[in-house]
Amino acid sequence: MKFNVPESKVFYIAVYDIASEKRLQKVLKVFRKYMTWVQNSAFEGELNSKQFHSLVAELIEIIDKNEDSIIFYHAEEQKHIGKKIVGIEKNEIIKFF
Amino acid sequence: MKFNVPESKVFYIAVYDIASEKRLQKVLKVFRKYMTWVQNSAFEGELNSKQFHSLVAELIEIIDKNEDSIIFYHAEEQKHIGKKIVGIEKNEIIKFF
Repeated sequence: MKFNVPESKVFYIAVYDIASEKRLQKVLKVFRKYMTWVQNSAFEGELNSKQFHSLVAELIEIIDKNEDSIIFYHAEEQKHIGKKIVGIEKNEIIKFF
Repeated sequence: MKFNVPESKVFYIAVYDIASEKRLQKVLKVFRKYMTWVQNSAFEGELNSKQFHSLVAELIEIIDKNEDSIIFYHAEEQKHIGKKIVGIEKNEIIKFF
């Protein structure tokens, strides 16, 4: 008998700085498969370990490791991370402040 | 008798999307006063409530609220947020992965 243990997910915020427009477009395409676009240089999403490693593997194939930089901030529980927006919320066009 | 209660600080990650180069330069100048630059579109820093409100007040004076967007992710304790870097760490030129 097998139990399906739900795999724990981690909340990620990805911030990227890609030096070439061509690589940027490829990076965005990969991110969209795994995470939600929130702003020109940020994605958010809950990923399990397998998904995160697939995402990183795909990104590493694209980026120039000497020029490009991708930072993943992560929290075990999304409730530990709050969010405040100044200006427009580009993803949903909702204004705060 | 007065006690000096140490004011609690919150860890912030700021991600910004500023539509005009002129406003961007002003926004960067303000951020540098309060937080640490980590990447072209992100700053990090621990701020107390007063510092955060001063920062936001300065930013609101600069940005166009219909075009620009600044997201602050925050955590009460920095230990709740992990960080992984793919590619170069622009702030310190240290490679991970």
